Amino acid sequence: MDSIVTLTTDFGLTDAYVAAMKGVILSINPRARLIDVCHTIKPQNIQQAGFVLSTAYRFFPKKTIHLVVVDPGVGSERRAIILRTPSADFVAPDNGVLSYVIQQSLAKPMADRVNRQQIELGLEMEAVAITKSEFWLSPVSSTFHGRDIFAPVAARLSLGFPPISFGEAITSVTMLPLPRPYRTSGGSLVGHILHIDSFGNLVTSIRSDDLSQAKGAITIEVGNHRISGLSRTYAEGEGLLALIGSSGYLEVSLKGGSACALLAAEVGNEVRVR
Amino acid sequence: MDSIVTLTTDFGLTDAYVAAMKGVILSINPRARLIDVCHTIKPQNIQQAGFVLSTAYRFFPKKTIHLVVVDPGVGSERRAIILRTPSADFVAPDNGVLSYVIQQSLAKPMADRVNRQQIELGLEMEAVAITKSEFWLSPVSSTFHGRDIFAPVAARLSLGFPPISFGEAITSVTMLPLPRPYRTSGGSLVGHILHIDSFGNLVTSIRSDDLSQAKGAITIEVGNHRISGLSRTYAEGEGLLALIGSSGYLEVSLKGGSACALLAAEVGNEVRVR
Amino acid sequence: MDSIVTLTTDFGLTDAYVAAMKGVILSINPRARLIDVCHTIKPQNIQQAGFVLSTAYRFFPKKTIHLVVVDPGVGSERRAIILRTPSADFVAPDNGVLSYVIQQSLAKPMADRVNRQQIELGLEMEAVAITKSEFWLSPVSSTFHGRDIFAPVAARLSLGFPPISFGEAITSVTMLPLPRPYRTSGGSLVGHILHIDSFGNLVTSIRSDDLSQAKGAITIEVGNHRISGLSRTYAEGEGLLALIGSSGYLEVSLKGGSACALLAAEVGNEVRVR
Repeated sequence: MDSIVTLTTDFGLTDAYVAAMKGVILSINPRARLIDVCHTIKPQNIQQAGFVLSTAYRFFPKKTIHLVVVDPGVGSERRAIILRTPSADFVAPDNGVLSYVIQQSLAKPMADRVNRQQIELGLEMEAVAITKSEFWLSPVSSTFHGRDIFAPVAARLSLGFPPISFGEAITSVTMLPLPRPYRTSGGSLVGHILHIDSFGNLVTSIRSDDLSQAKGAITIEVGNHRISGLSRTYAEGEGLLALIGSSGYLEVSLKGGSACALLAAEVGNEVRVR
Repeated sequence: MDSIVTLTTDFGLTDAYVAAMKGVILSINPRARLIDVCHTIKPQNIQQAGFVLSTAYRFFPKKTIHLVVVDPGVGSERRAIILRTPSADFVAPDNGVLSYVIQQSLAKPMADRVNRQQIELGLEMEAVAITKSEFWLSPVSSTFHGRDIFAPVAARLSLGFPPISFGEAITSVTMLPLPRPYRTSGGSLVGHILHIDSFGNLVTSIRSDDLSQAKGAITIEVGNHRISGLSRTYAEGEGLLALIGSSGYLEVSLKGGSACALLAAEVGNEVRVR
Repeated sequence: MDSIVTLTTDFGLTDAYVAAMKGVILSINPRARLIDVCHTIKPQNIQQAGFVLSTAYRFFPKKTIHLVVVDPGVGSERRAIILRTPSADFVAPDNGVLSYVIQQSLAKPMADRVNRQQIELGLEMEAVAITKSEFWLSPVSSTFHGRDIFAPVAARLSLGFPPISFGEAITSVTMLPLPRPYRTSGGSLVGHILHIDSFGNLVTSIRSDDLSQAKGAITIEVGNHRISGLSRTYAEGEGLLALIGSSGYLEVSLKGGSACALLAAEVGNEVRVR
């Protein structure tokens, strides 16, 4: 009854769309505990929403329900799904927004199964396509499934309804082509900027594991800048620095400033490690 | 005891004014459940606050208390009121910020009674002028009644105190002149942009009901653009489209972009339906 | 168990850093009540965080736990502390962010003891350096102590663990040099802008007490503007006005607009009272 329901949307902070969803949830489960993850995802940016959620969901209690509504295809034929992983439940459109969650929940290494549009879930996870309209608000608008479908489904999940109550079991879901770093013939590792946080830190697709050989001796290249070696904290040295951030990714940061502003960096830009 | 109290203000996100109000409420009712509706209402924009709240309050459980503090007249002679409707309680300055709520709660059609400064509430609603200072924080500042008067009153309402505990019954409250669409002699319907949401969608004053005759054959004119017919979802077609949005109003939207930016639209601009 | 934990950070609104901290707290104390104070503190602006928190914490119930993570020295040798005052507990880096709280909690007048780097706490308050790593997340990142150290400590404090559980008692903590108004030989009082709120009001370091003699006859000078006398509310008169704001400080405000924009004012600018 006191389940936690988190919310991640691209609804912004100037409307009451998020509040309407919370009202729907509390009307069904007045004891649900509602926690905002982020509502300033760029409009319809599925990749960003998936990444931001992936940095937080693991820190919530098991059985937390994570509701994600970044849904450019609302009202079209895209499916709505519930994904149950060993750590949590997710309620979202089936548009790839759960790609990072799925990648982190797979027992077998990722590369076997992804970079395709659909992924077989295997035994680690179960998924349900949300199809039973008796649990939805009536009438359902064609433009706000967050309020009319996702919120009432998440609320009933938080009351203990099993996922299968809401539709049919499915065995595969949509994945984004997640950018993976690769090695050049010269031995450099090439990754990309996945996310720029509000401090202007550049979070790259290169993970701590990718660097395991020789962390001290590396050089990081981004734009026209070179950074020698890894720092341990944002407070070390002067100017641009590189470190392994709190989510396990290589980050480029500017002491006392914004690396993003200094480098005019954008998500997708290349970062090279020698 | 576990009542829900929602908050709608123009206090922005860079100060602790909202937190101070929440502290006051929790000091009086530690079990109150606090939900933010919106705190980025433009400073002193009563119409916007009223509209934004009107899109969310209906989705909350009955007896929810909605606290609204957009209060350019704070410290002056403007009244503070409690409005009890069949669905919820509202605590707000009597400056018209509840106009949309009142319009939606009236049993008799709106046009009979509004576009005047004061409206007789009739039997559907009761209202109280907040005058009994024993329930306020002491001393009361002359600049922050949200914290010193509205919050403690809302907190005690959430404990079950009846509205009349806080002052005297009143029979009329202040209404904004709500913009209503009108028909030209040529048969066009002329409405206005009521609200621009964070996706850049233009929400107009024209409601689904106003269009009931011939939805397929209509042409919508906004700025120098014409849109033929209504879409069902934001994902249909290309470019500018018009649809009935999730709150029942005609909206103009740009697929994959911001209609507001494309049209340099502003609240108050005319929208014409032929 | 149902303790309130508030959060004040410079993490912004576009990431899930705050949500990760909330997940950690709820994993340890599922009944904790989480309230946001402010997350848009300018990156690493310790003074601003301290000021904003100081305007809200007094309105929360006694024993509320205030978690503050504005932490430019994260991962370096700066201490992490718990401060227990008669009204509340604070969990924060020992970088001066609690200076306003400490100033307001001291029984002896401030001037005796501050404008130094370290302040002796005396008997009014107790403080503990957070050193016992068994209560931290493992492994601890070197860049996000908010999630890995402060959040789990605050969560266990909210379960009733005494502060000393988390480390060693200390008798002095770091203070910022808090700007105090001073009198010129000509009898003017010179203060500074401490904070600019989201309405563009300029909150100065001059307190109501500093003006006790002759409030009616004063002239306030800011930039090239002069304001005669104090207003009681933001709604009085026309143009620029000065008043004692809701936190007890002299404020400069523009009726129906932003004093900050009109004056191109910045935190630190001088304000003079004759």
